[in-house]
Amino acid sequence: MKNFDFHNPTRLVFGKDTIPNIGSYVQQYGEKKVLLLYGKGSIFKNGVYDQVVASLQAAGITYVEMSGVQPNPVLSKVRETVQFMKEEQVEAIVAVGGGSVLDTAKICAASYYYAEDPWDFYERKVFPDKALPIYGILTLSATGSEMNSGGVITNEEEKKKWGWGSKVTYPRLSIVDPSVQKSLPRNQTVKGVVDTLTHVFEAYFGGTKNTLMQDEFSEGIIRTTMAAAKVLLEDPSDYDARAELAWAATLALNGLNGLGRAGDWASHGIEHSLSAYYDIAHGEGLSMVMPAWMQYVYKEDVDKFARFGEKIFGLELEDQEAQALAAIKAYKDFLQGIGAPVTLRERGIGEEHLVEMSKNALLRGPLGTLKVLSEKDVLEILRLAL
Amino acid sequence: MKNFDFHNPTRLVFGKDTIPNIGSYVQQYGEKKVLLLYGKGSIFKNGVYDQVVASLQAAGITYVEMSGVQPNPVLSKVRETVQFMKEEQVEAIVAVGGGSVLDTAKICAASYYYAEDPWDFYERKVFPDKALPIYGILTLSATGSEMNSGGVITNEEEKKKWGWGSKVTYPRLSIVDPSVQKSLPRNQTVKGVVDTLTHVFEAYFGGTKNTLMQDEFSEGIIRTTMAAAKVLLEDPSDYDARAELAWAATLALNGLNGLGRAGDWASHGIEHSLSAYYDIAHGEGLSMVMPAWMQYVYKEDVDKFARFGEKIFGLELEDQEAQALAAIKAYKDFLQGIGAPVTLRERGIGEEHLVEMSKNALLRGPLGTLKVLSEKDVLEILRLAL
Repeated sequence: MKNFDFHNPTRLVFGKDTIPNIGSYVQQYGEKKVLLLYGKGSIFKNGVYDQVVASLQAAGITYVEMSGVQPNPVLSKVRETVQFMKEEQVEAIVAVGGGSVLDTAKICAASYYYAEDPWDFYERKVFPDKALPIYGILTLSATGSEMNSGGVITNEEEKKKWGWGSKVTYPRLSIVDPSVQKSLPRNQTVKGVVDTLTHVFEAYFGGTKNTLMQDEFSEGIIRTTMAAAKVLLEDPSDYDARAELAWAATLALNGLNGLGRAGDWASHGIEHSLSAYYDIAHGEGLSMVMPAWMQYVYKEDVDKFARFGEKIFGLELEDQEAQALAAIKAYKDFLQGIGAPVTLRERGIGEEHLVEMSKNALLRGPLGTLKVLSEKDVLEILRLAL
Repeated sequence: MKNFDFHNPTRLVFGKDTIPNIGSYVQQYGEKKVLLLYGKGSIFKNGVYDQVVASLQAAGITYVEMSGVQPNPVLSKVRETVQFMKEEQVEAIVAVGGGSVLDTAKICAASYYYAEDPWDFYERKVFPDKALPIYGILTLSATGSEMNSGGVITNEEEKKKWGWGSKVTYPRLSIVDPSVQKSLPRNQTVKGVVDTLTHVFEAYFGGTKNTLMQDEFSEGIIRTTMAAAKVLLEDPSDYDARAELAWAATLALNGLNGLGRAGDWASHGIEHSLSAYYDIAHGEGLSMVMPAWMQYVYKEDVDKFARFGEKIFGLELEDQEAQALAAIKAYKDFLQGIGAPVTLRERGIGEEHLVEMSKNALLRGPLGTLKVLSEKDVLEILRLAL
């Protein structure tokens, strides 16, 4: 096990009928005027907007609104939001939505105290020492952004989809009410499942050995996610399964299961490049990239992929390499079984930008820890994914 | 899954050679004078005292010392320490040792701002709204106190061994260097293993169903702990196993695995009564009480005990009740295998105080959630443990 330093200060409020408390939480922590940040309108359909607004009003919290955060959130929206926040002098952000809204809130919260362009943080030209408090109201369990400090933003002009985070950008408090996710369309649930699994894989398959507790923890999240997916695809309104998936998604990326290990994160890097070129959802991109990555790198740690096969799919082949390959196939089968794409062509992506995307994926430096990937490696993985 | 509200603000620094950073951490957070609190001298043998003192001195932190915290920490020591802290006007506590030292630090940190007797907190006459910051340097992984807000103190005069905690008593930062535990005597390692397992069981067997993620998480901690125990009893200096056990012990009681569930805690309540009457270690007491509790209550949730048998011991009996009973026997066998006592008589405890202890265990109200225990139930469990 590698040394680690863990500090996750986010308070997580989880369960049914918890959203109407948001006003009193903000009141207790002392802010009087907030930015209400959200996406494109699903929160009007599922009633969350009304719950939040009624709660803020009841607590005497003033709010101004910014809507229109896109599923793959963009820098232009960040700039617009920061400008608005400064004009309005808000004291906190109440971010209502999925990971895109929370990710946008994080960079905006830090940029509030910064006079120059928010992209500077992503380019690591500057590091924040403070940020406005963030309150998250999660409506789609997938990215884990509700209980971590990170976020991904796309710089549309430069075709850079990059991650960033800081110890000052953990949400102060996030509310996760799984019951509001009952009305999600099937493909959104599927994307959340894939995103959750992939976050675990990035920690689980990274280049560190001898971390039994973390492997056990990761395998528990994987099995729980897969079991919940199976139930939800039959009955999207099953509360217990929604709660299991929501909690698994939070645990998949709140930092715990990756402690003491080198995370890999190559698949995320490749996917970010992919969705900088094509308007596909992050979960979809991961579903296409990760099995190809597995196929390309499994020889670096055959035992771990074989263990994956045993602990997740109950495989018991004698030959470890055959077991590793069978495990990768079983994961692909699982994805296909839930209706997730496993090839680029399924989303109409061909060879047209593969070389550019391989270069793009390595703009910030090498990718991966299980195997450190060169541009040529990334290209091979994208080809395998075709 | 039940609703929950989770907020664990402790920063955990984990790994080799991390203790010499304590001075710079205290400096960064801004305190200039601290109480150095510890037990009876093991920290002189394993070199931890020297590391801490050198680090504080190098950082220019003034310290005053209080030693002599006992393995079952007592109220008289708390009173003495609080008095001393007030006289010396310390700004933080650096608690060096196992759970007993951390538990003492917590009540002292809160009592620093309270003019009356510390026991008032345990009697729930008063609730703290602030406490001095606590820095933990863990030298024995067992109680999980390094990353939670709770502690247990014995009021010797009144024979009350009670737990207490508050949201202001989480350590600000704890350092866990598993390598300093290499020199622990075998029986201390065994007690840590039993304490860790029992903490998990209290969450795992509590009276809530349908919490797959939490069950998976708990089972992962149990398997990791048992695997590490096996290695350490052969080779106490195996770093990886020390690290696995240390991390498992922290996770067993940092609040996570019990979320969304009703913890049971009856075995802890009974053990506290037991060790208020007899000078036995907490881990030993749990080792004697918990199997008896299991035997007495398993019918309340046969499926869960059967699952325990499958997931932990690989049992595959067709009859669920037979499987549950086999699981309890397998756990008893495990305890005996590591040299932990499973009957009261092994520690010279007979029937002399059983009735008194049963009454004592229920002084603060009913015990348990899987089965709510009456005085008669507690007596039966103690008899089963004889």
